[in-house]
Amino acid sequence: MKNVLVLGAGLVSRPLVRYLLNCEGSTVTVASRTVSKAEGILGAHPRGKAVALDVNAAGGMDALDVLIAGADVVISLLPYVFHLDVARKCIAHKRHLVTTSYVKPEMRALDEAARQAGVLFLNELGLDPGIDHMSAMRVIEAVKGSGGSVVSFRSYCGGLPAPDNDDNPLGYKFSWSPKGVVLAGTNSAKFLEDGNLKEIPNTRLFATHWPVFASGVGELEGYPNRDSVSYIDTYGLHGVRTMFRGTLRNFGWCATWQKLVELGIVNPQPRADLLTMTFAKVVAEIAGRRPGEDLRGAVARRLSLHPQSREMNNIAWMGLLEDRAIPLGAESLADALALRLAELMPYRKGEKDMIVLLHEFLASYPGRPSLRRITSTLVAFGEPEGDSAMSKTVSLPAAVGTKLLLEGRLRLTGVHIPVVSELYDPILDELKTLKIECVEEWES
Amino acid sequence: MKNVLVLGAGLVSRPLVRYLLNCEGSTVTVASRTVSKAEGILGAHPRGKAVALDVNAAGGMDALDVLIAGADVVISLLPYVFHLDVARKCIAHKRHLVTTSYVKPEMRALDEAARQAGVLFLNELGLDPGIDHMSAMRVIEAVKGSGGSVVSFRSYCGGLPAPDNDDNPLGYKFSWSPKGVVLAGTNSAKFLEDGNLKEIPNTRLFATHWPVFASGVGELEGYPNRDSVSYIDTYGLHGVRTMFRGTLRNFGWCATWQKLVELGIVNPQPRADLLTMTFAKVVAEIAGRRPGEDLRGAVARRLSLHPQSREMNNIAWMGLLEDRAIPLGAESLADALALRLAELMPYRKGEKDMIVLLHEFLASYPGRPSLRRITSTLVAFGEPEGDSAMSKTVSLPAAVGTKLLLEGRLRLTGVHIPVVSELYDPILDELKTLKIECVEEWES
Repeated sequence: MKNVLVLGAGLVSRPLVRYLLNCEGSTVTVASRTVSKAEGILGAHPRGKAVALDVNAAGGMDALDVLIAGADVVISLLPYVFHLDVARKCIAHKRHLVTTSYVKPEMRALDEAARQAGVLFLNELGLDPGIDHMSAMRVIEAVKGSGGSVVSFRSYCGGLPAPDNDDNPLGYKFSWSPKGVVLAGTNSAKFLEDGNLKEIPNTRLFATHWPVFASGVGELEGYPNRDSVSYIDTYGLHGVRTMFRGTLRNFGWCATWQKLVELGIVNPQPRADLLTMTFAKVVAEIAGRRPGEDLRGAVARRLSLHPQSREMNNIAWMGLLEDRAIPLGAESLADALALRLAELMPYRKGEKDMIVLLHEFLASYPGRPSLRRITSTLVAFGEPEGDSAMSKTVSLPAAVGTKLLLEGRLRLTGVHIPVVSELYDPILDELKTLKIECVEEWES
Repeated sequence: MKNVLVLGAGLVSRPLVRYLLNCEGSTVTVASRTVSKAEGILGAHPRGKAVALDVNAAGGMDALDVLIAGADVVISLLPYVFHLDVARKCIAHKRHLVTTSYVKPEMRALDEAARQAGVLFLNELGLDPGIDHMSAMRVIEAVKGSGGSVVSFRSYCGGLPAPDNDDNPLGYKFSWSPKGVVLAGTNSAKFLEDGNLKEIPNTRLFATHWPVFASGVGELEGYPNRDSVSYIDTYGLHGVRTMFRGTLRNFGWCATWQKLVELGIVNPQPRADLLTMTFAKVVAEIAGRRPGEDLRGAVARRLSLHPQSREMNNIAWMGLLEDRAIPLGAESLADALALRLAELMPYRKGEKDMIVLLHEFLASYPGRPSLRRITSTLVAFGEPEGDSAMSKTVSLPAAVGTKLLLEGRLRLTGVHIPVVSELYDPILDELKTLKIECVEEWES
């Protein structure tokens, strides 16, 4: 009997734990600060075990050490800051490690030690990063294998309400950190387009968007997601002329956020005076309202918008023009906006989310006069009273990777991400049986 | 023996005349101010006749009257201003009329009179307008006929160098009026996107663009083409949520033109002082060069560009930073730019152009959970030493329409454009045999 240790019992843990409990011949220990959360996920399964673990408490690290020593594979769904401690203990005890997080230099630096210990540290095995890598590499390798070369790669990913539950003017609901969504508006971006490096300052991020058709969904809008250029190395696409990764939203999102950024409300600088303020008061101030001017008119003037435009209607719908107290706990305007939007745009009971992941490749082939288009599309829906699409698509790749490790089917050692066929082939195949399928279409 | 009268022997006339000469049982009279041009096109064909006609000269209108009286079908490829005179004479003599031009209110006002005379005035029978209408309506009617409804329509058209002959930094060559291309930069645009009316001022026209994949070509960029909204009526697409028509160019075109517009050189206002100016002098003035500043640096500063950016490299490549005399005959900066670009970017002997026309429809069907995507793509290439793709795609629809009239296969009377199946079905079918094929792809 092999034992899997799952660290963390947050929103995404459930599908992973349930999948692993279905694997005969292994036990699953779920460690969580709040043990009842682990118990809730395990549901008194005979091969499941819930334990309390607070790594920050006195003796927490020792308890972690004991748990890792008793496991065959460790899955860390903890926040990133804990990954290095977990990883060092995995090396000490020669245990495999699986995470859904980006590999940062500190993790990469453990590659040699992991190899020496004969263990595999499998990272970026979630959705984005995770399924995006795997479904991209499967096509890229197939293009190379058929004598072609990828000259353009565009990839888009988004978590959105399922169309049935898309019922607010922004076409969005929060399935993860509202603050993360809001702060995305402060990112700059860079990508390669037709051989030209495009650097988009954060002030123009949401002004840079275009329609994207996703089969099975319809038309969405995509805007650039931070640094796409580094993926040229990750995917081995040297010589590519277009390299773009973007985020998907429903129409209207980008235009409204562009104006929120221009207004100056997406500002992460702490402000001590917010406790005594209302949205109307703060917005009047940052919009530079003139004496006697009505607030909606002032904001519209400041943003060069018609007072009855869609963007102004959205700003009013958010309550930003109302004498509404700034939410408690907000330390910055960005905080205040995040808290307000989380309140306005939650998933309600029984509502479904949707994940859309779309790659578009253009490939050249010797003797073929025009470029060949290939797409890979994943559309996944949440279950009304069950797991969200987000939690399934983030955690099931890690669960499947763990199963492969338990079965001894992976020979790799060291620090890896799933860009090699030994990993992506069996994982994508198994995900397909779980209704997480990246559907490829190859232009003839 | 029936007689066709072709008015005009310009660039697009040749494929039309050659096609009609191939129709047994009809003669073709080509009237041109310069009779040798008509003779050149007819090439001493036994059923062809070249006549000199200058409608502006004394007796010109009488000569036109005689020619129309002697024809069964009149094709006017003259500039638009002459169409009304021609149309009135066609009514007087009860002759059918074919044009490739937009129907303006004056032409539409002749509908009743044309019906009374029992003749058909068939307009907008070129490429754009023309093939665009026909290939769009064929899909729209097929969607309706299969129980669906079109919720989104996006259409793009462009005339570009064939990829083999795409050898300048702007990815463009002039196959029609350079001034028309330059003045396109002074247009505003409006379209409907997801139910929202988007009005794009001319200052933001080229800032509004996105990648468009065309099967058989690759990725191009599309930007909005004037008023798309009026096409909701033309195509009977009431209830559509997205209605967009755009122009296709190679990557980089829009970014460069956005900066040319911002610089103020796309200015059609007459300026009396241009004769004594050079580009460098005029550009220094409009860029507001400071004393001691080098010109490239001044322009880059004014346009918020890096001095070595692609856009600045293109502006330099155009020669706008050189002590180069403003071309003779330029009455405005826009004129000067058009003349300069025509000189820099001509089609040279043996070079081929390319036409790309692409429609993208999204349709909803009862019981189908997601939207269905349908595309219609036309890619046509010019012949190295023969007709350009532009001349073939603009004139052959009119030629085919004329043939149908000669054969008595059209029962319509009055003023029409080819949006009814009686017109578009036989014309599109015949164009396909001429290698002008709109290839449809229907998502299953």
